[in-house]
Amino acid sequence: MATLRDIGLSAAVNIFGALIFFVAFAVLRLQPFNDRVYFPKWYLKGLRSDPTNSGTFVSKFVNLDFRSYLRFLNWMPAALKMPEPELIDHAGLDSAVYLRIYLMGLKVFVPVTFLAWAILVPVNWTNNTIELAKLKDVTASDIDKLSISNVPLGSPRFWAHILVAYAFTFWTCYVLLKEYEKVASMRYQFLASERRRPDQFSVLVRNVPPDPDESVSELVEHFFLVNHPDHYLTHQVVYNANKLADLVNKKKSMQNWLDYYQLKYSRNNSKRPMRKIGFLGLCGEKVDALEYYTSEIEKTSEEIATERERVASDSKSIMPAAFVSFKTRWAAAVCAQTQQSRNPTLWLTDWAPEPRDVYWPNLAIPYVSVSVRRLIMGVAFFFLTFFFMIPITIVQSLASIEGIEKVLPFLKTVIELKVIKSLIGGVLPGLALKLFLIFLPSILMLMAKFEGFISLSSLERRSASKYYIFNLVNTFLASVIIGTALDQLKSFINQSPTQIPKTIGLAIPQRATFFITYIMVDGWAGVAGEILMLKPLIIYHLKNTFLVKTEKDREEAMDPGSIGFNTGEPQIQLYFLLGLVYAAVTPILLPFIIVFFGLAFIVYRHQIINVYNQEYESAAAFWPEVHGRVIVALVISQMLLLGLLATKHAAQSTPFLIALPILTIAFHKYCQGRYEPAFVRYPLQEAMMKDTLERARDPNLNLKAYLQNAYLHPVFKSVDEEDDEDKNSLDEKLDNECVLVPTKRQSRKNTPIPSKVSATSSPSPPEVDDKSRP
Amino acid sequence: MATLRDIGLSAAVNIFGALIFFVAFAVLRLQPFNDRVYFPKWYLKGLRSDPTNSGTFVSKFVNLDFRSYLRFLNWMPAALKMPEPELIDHAGLDSAVYLRIYLMGLKVFVPVTFLAWAILVPVNWTNNTIELAKLKDVTASDIDKLSISNVPLGSPRFWAHILVAYAFTFWTCYVLLKEYEKVASMRYQFLASERRRPDQFSVLVRNVPPDPDESVSELVEHFFLVNHPDHYLTHQVVYNANKLADLVNKKKSMQNWLDYYQLKYSRNNSKRPMRKIGFLGLCGEKVDALEYYTSEIEKTSEEIATERERVASDSKSIMPAAFVSFKTRWAAAVCAQTQQSRNPTLWLTDWAPEPRDVYWPNLAIPYVSVSVRRLIMGVAFFFLTFFFMIPITIVQSLASIEGIEKVLPFLKTVIELKVIKSLIGGVLPGLALKLFLIFLPSILMLMAKFEGFISLSSLERRSASKYYIFNLVNTFLASVIIGTALDQLKSFINQSPTQIPKTIGLAIPQRATFFITYIMVDGWAGVAGEILMLKPLIIYHLKNTFLVKTEKDREEAMDPGSIGFNTGEPQIQLYFLLGLVYAAVTPILLPFIIVFFGLAFIVYRHQIINVYNQEYESAAAFWPEVHGRVIVALVISQMLLLGLLATKHAAQSTPFLIALPILTIAFHKYCQGRYEPAFVRYPLQEAMMKDTLERARDPNLNLKAYLQNAYLHPVFKSVDEEDDEDKNSLDEKLDNECVLVPTKRQSRKNTPIPSKVSATSSPSPPEVDDKSRP
Repeated sequence: MATLRDIGLSAAVNIFGALIFFVAFAVLRLQPFNDRVYFPKWYLKGLRSDPTNSGTFVSKFVNLDFRSYLRFLNWMPAALKMPEPELIDHAGLDSAVYLRIYLMGLKVFVPVTFLAWAILVPVNWTNNTIELAKLKDVTASDIDKLSISNVPLGSPRFWAHILVAYAFTFWTCYVLLKEYEKVASMRYQFLASERRRPDQFSVLVRNVPPDPDESVSELVEHFFLVNHPDHYLTHQVVYNANKLADLVNKKKSMQNWLDYYQLKYSRNNSKRPMRKIGFLGLCGEKVDALEYYTSEIEKTSEEIATERERVASDSKSIMPAAFVSFKTRWAAAVCAQTQQSRNPTLWLTDWAPEPRDVYWPNLAIPYVSVSVRRLIMGVAFFFLTFFFMIPITIVQSLASIEGIEKVLPFLKTVIELKVIKSLIGGVLPGLALKLFLIFLPSILMLMAKFEGFISLSSLERRSASKYYIFNLVNTFLASVIIGTALDQLKSFINQSPTQIPKTIGLAIPQRATFFITYIMVDGWAGVAGEILMLKPLIIYHLKNTFLVKTEKDREEAMDPGSIGFNTGEPQIQLYFLLGLVYAAVTPILLPFIIVFFGLAFIVYRHQIINVYNQEYESAAAFWPEVHGRVIVALVISQMLLLGLLATKHAAQSTPFLIALPILTIAFHKYCQGRYEPAFVRYPLQEAMMKDTLERARDPNLNLKAYLQNAYLHPVFKSVDEEDDEDKNSLDEKLDNECVLVPTKRQSRKNTPIPSKVSATSSPSPPEVDDKSRP
Repeated sequence: MATLRDIGLSAAVNIFGALIFFVAFAVLRLQPFNDRVYFPKWYLKGLRSDPTNSGTFVSKFVNLDFRSYLRFLNWMPAALKMPEPELIDHAGLDSAVYLRIYLMGLKVFVPVTFLAWAILVPVNWTNNTIELAKLKDVTASDIDKLSISNVPLGSPRFWAHILVAYAFTFWTCYVLLKEYEKVASMRYQFLASERRRPDQFSVLVRNVPPDPDESVSELVEHFFLVNHPDHYLTHQVVYNANKLADLVNKKKSMQNWLDYYQLKYSRNNSKRPMRKIGFLGLCGEKVDALEYYTSEIEKTSEEIATERERVASDSKSIMPAAFVSFKTRWAAAVCAQTQQSRNPTLWLTDWAPEPRDVYWPNLAIPYVSVSVRRLIMGVAFFFLTFFFMIPITIVQSLASIEGIEKVLPFLKTVIELKVIKSLIGGVLPGLALKLFLIFLPSILMLMAKFEGFISLSSLERRSASKYYIFNLVNTFLASVIIGTALDQLKSFINQSPTQIPKTIGLAIPQRATFFITYIMVDGWAGVAGEILMLKPLIIYHLKNTFLVKTEKDREEAMDPGSIGFNTGEPQIQLYFLLGLVYAAVTPILLPFIIVFFGLAFIVYRHQIINVYNQEYESAAAFWPEVHGRVIVALVISQMLLLGLLATKHAAQSTPFLIALPILTIAFHKYCQGRYEPAFVRYPLQEAMMKDTLERARDPNLNLKAYLQNAYLHPVFKSVDEEDDEDKNSLDEKLDNECVLVPTKRQSRKNTPIPSKVSATSSPSPPEVDDKSRP
């Protein structure tokens, strides 16, 4: 049990750490040669030019304006300055709504904290249970004096906690309701004001039944001409171009190596670069690298051409799926939301994701196998959650000194050295676990991909929900009960349903200090570290040194990254859970949560404005899941309070506390009915309105030409580009029209006219302006 | 514990009871004066005329053909003779599919019984656990020798039970799958071959938002003209005519009384009938009954006219709901299955029920209150299920001798008589429970009505599902554990999830004899009693004696009743549950189940052919629930076997048994995805096909005229009839066109042309023909 002083010390350390990150960030971002790492979003928008191209030689790389260093926290107000509508324009609705999650955290917890400190802290503090216990040599700290542990058994003071729990629930639900309402209306407004996009008119049809007489393309056309006679416009079949995409990627990677060796050779003309052709260039025959890669690239180019030919001509590479486009949004909405055929597993229609959101490799998965894949992954995830400690324990035992000596006896003499020995003993076991946790999001993403989701947004949402469950079980529960998930599973199966909340509830107050430390390390220092962007910084400079030849290469070397919904959202949810669980139990934890939400809000707002490049726009489709998880956290907190009070001989309060989760779930049902359709369905009235407006505004629109190639596999487009840099006029026209759906390349080259709002108001923080014209 | 001989004796008694019912039925139904009670379906179809109108005086009332009495079981093969397609034509798809539930019972349990007797009975019988136990003075019977109780603890023979449990599961799932497939295809075929019906073109819109400038009718018209411009045809607003309907009913009941007194007076002209005008005619002033009712009827008629005026003119009696009709089935399918407005709680569209299926009083319930009503009823049902014993215990204690003496002291002398004393002691406590159970389906139906469902079919489905849960808890579980539901609830909350199946599983084999007796009393004798139709028989003859003046009155005195899905289906499900639970435990129970299913199949097939008059046609919309409940029974049986084997020291089998429910639930999910949409959604392809066909067949159809008054509240129609017996030509035309949607009256008066199949093949059992032309 830590005392208040320990906590204070720990807080000081973490605040100091966060400050160091901020200072480092302030120094690094002001250097012109890092400009592309810290402001990639503006480059992508075409609103910022490279400061290294102008000025004196030194000022190209180092910022010599000392005034700018003094105002090293200036980015914070700057990040808050951009108003929300402009932010939506600048970074999309997804990003703006993602920020609202942090804001919601503040909205929930600031009043909750005030109330808890105003009522619960005095109520808890003015008892002497802990002091009496101390007399009996029970270890306890000042923290416990502020917590519910200090209230004696069966005290009427518990009514205060119950009352406050009600207040917390009502307030949280109120905030949730308002946010749901707001986000739903933002979504509708966004959808209504959006420009024309191919996905508004298109539907993805899957499981087209095989027909011996007709090709998939003919079949699709006939089916929709018959069943949507007045509305069908055109369609594009889906090709299985996964092999082609692999080849293109291979060629690209070899092109990178070629560039690397060419650069190396041009810097040091005396020696032609060589490389081994075996595994990872580590073994095998040594050859001239330049010749080797040139010939390999040529070979791959030929393969690509052959494969392309095959994909286009071979009927087997056509999947039984198609993107079908309609004349109006109304018709697309109708088709996407109804069942087409008598057999509900054939002619499955659903909204087409926007083109850049499509995860093309999964379109080649036969739909029939999807349910089996989900079942398999469900079982796999269960084992991953509850049994992941088993392989790690095995690895840990192997990674022990004896294990290594056994497997690799020749290392014995090295290992026996004292320094190495203690290093292995101290670091290796933890390393295995840490490595696993680092790779976990990737593993979950792989699992989601295996399940066959066809859009990036749904992949991220899916792996976020898995990550959340994993966190709940292995971070929250395992930390509370101090045991592996497997132990919990065993005890949960063998305990009665009323015993479980008691067991956990009893442990909750004792773990408060642990979670406070956790919040400071993971929440404060972790978030402050995010802004430093160490990994992209290092990678950018490595690439810049070894690969970059042209300005275009430099553009490609930027890796702005994206919000990372699949890891970020579950992290926020963990804080919601901690905050709600401890609100009525140990209110001292709440200020730490508030600091996290505030800091994260500012940091992520800055990152979204200056760094992240959104990969897709789902118009906040994730909000129902965010809402649902906060409800889960709320119900968990209520159950645990119920369990805790049951152990405190306050049984008369049980009926009042049982009512809480029931009311909360009823509230959730209400919200689902009222707001969730806004995120799942598209009302015909809205579609009709947009159609009518467009018909009035643009009566001669050639929609067919606009939609013709919208859903072409990107690999065909990129191959086109490789082969022929200047594109045909139709493509050009298409690209100019569909400004919101550029391919990766285009968005970096010819950015369209910047949106009005962001162009007129200040596009970047002021001190940046100072520096870019020194 | 009963021995085999006890069971045999009980079986003999019940078989004898069933036989008596059958003989009584055979005798009663052959009497011409009962003809309308036992063959009302044929009268309703207009295919049978009254035998009392022809022949000699005696043969009008008593059947003197003695040969017909000898073949008193002839109705059984006759009931089986009608082929299924003809049955669908004759009684609708609902009835035909309802019979398939019994057939499915046979399909499941006949092979299961054979397998269980071939494998499990020998495996169980050849042990001596029970005999050893008997030596230790444990009471046990021969039944137990055949059950799993006879296998010693930890015996490897339990593998046989596990194997057989797998076989049962696979077989049951196979039958379920095939049935689902078959019923889904029957439904589609039925929908495709159906004649034109108003509900195919109509959608019920609820929660039309209030508008200060426009009436509901205008608003609906404008909204659908804008959002479904090419498809909208017409609409009918919904009136709150509940008060009007009450008045009409009141008038009808007084008309009945008037008829009764008139008949009485005409038989005995000497004395004018008098009645008291107070409560139920028991107290108050005595008046001339004929004059009283005539004046009352006049008064009510005036009230009806005023109220009718008010409903038609007052805008407050127009509900914010409307039946909207479209030009094509395609458009109706689109509108019913999509969201119309941005706010998902406004402009709610759903399929309109067919006109005779509409439960008009509930259309007046504001839709906003529906979710609150459901929540209230959910809580109420929870208390009804788990706490219903409390009021009954109170009533029972009041109904005891002391209780009565206390409340009604003047009865003391009567009660103290020995005969009465024993009667009260023996009968009254049971009576309270029995009365409650008799009224339970009505209570559940009232609850469903309160919840606001707007069609009779959904009301019946809802109360069936409630009745099933009540049965499961209070018949099955309470009989197994021998305790009230409240005790169970307490123990379930305080036991661990693994302990519950163990507790119940352990009790299962011991209760086999109880359930065998239950099956014989409730299943065998109960079903045999159903065919006798005692209640309708008595009521018909009472009405015939006191009310009937004209042939029309006699037609109205028939009460054919309907299948009673809300009570019948939960009963079947209880037998499925018993059969599946005991299949692997006490196989001797299975033959009793088979006899039930066989007998019930024949009896209900006979009733459906000859008696029941379907109130609505939902095209087997109930099948997903039937399927779901069998799956629940299957999972329960698997869990209980798991629990039972765990107590039998056969722990190594646990993993194999855990896999079973998981596989079963996965199978259920598959079925849901594959077949449930057939019962919920209407594919556009089907709609388009039917539209195209109709356009080709009937290009000049005036659909608007056809749909104009389809959804008029029946009270307006019946008022029309009362006022003016010959209807205007439009109405006449409508009625002739919509043959499948007649009002109650019309169906009895001018039955349309009988369907081809039933007219050409024998319409009634042969011995009936014998007798009707003696």
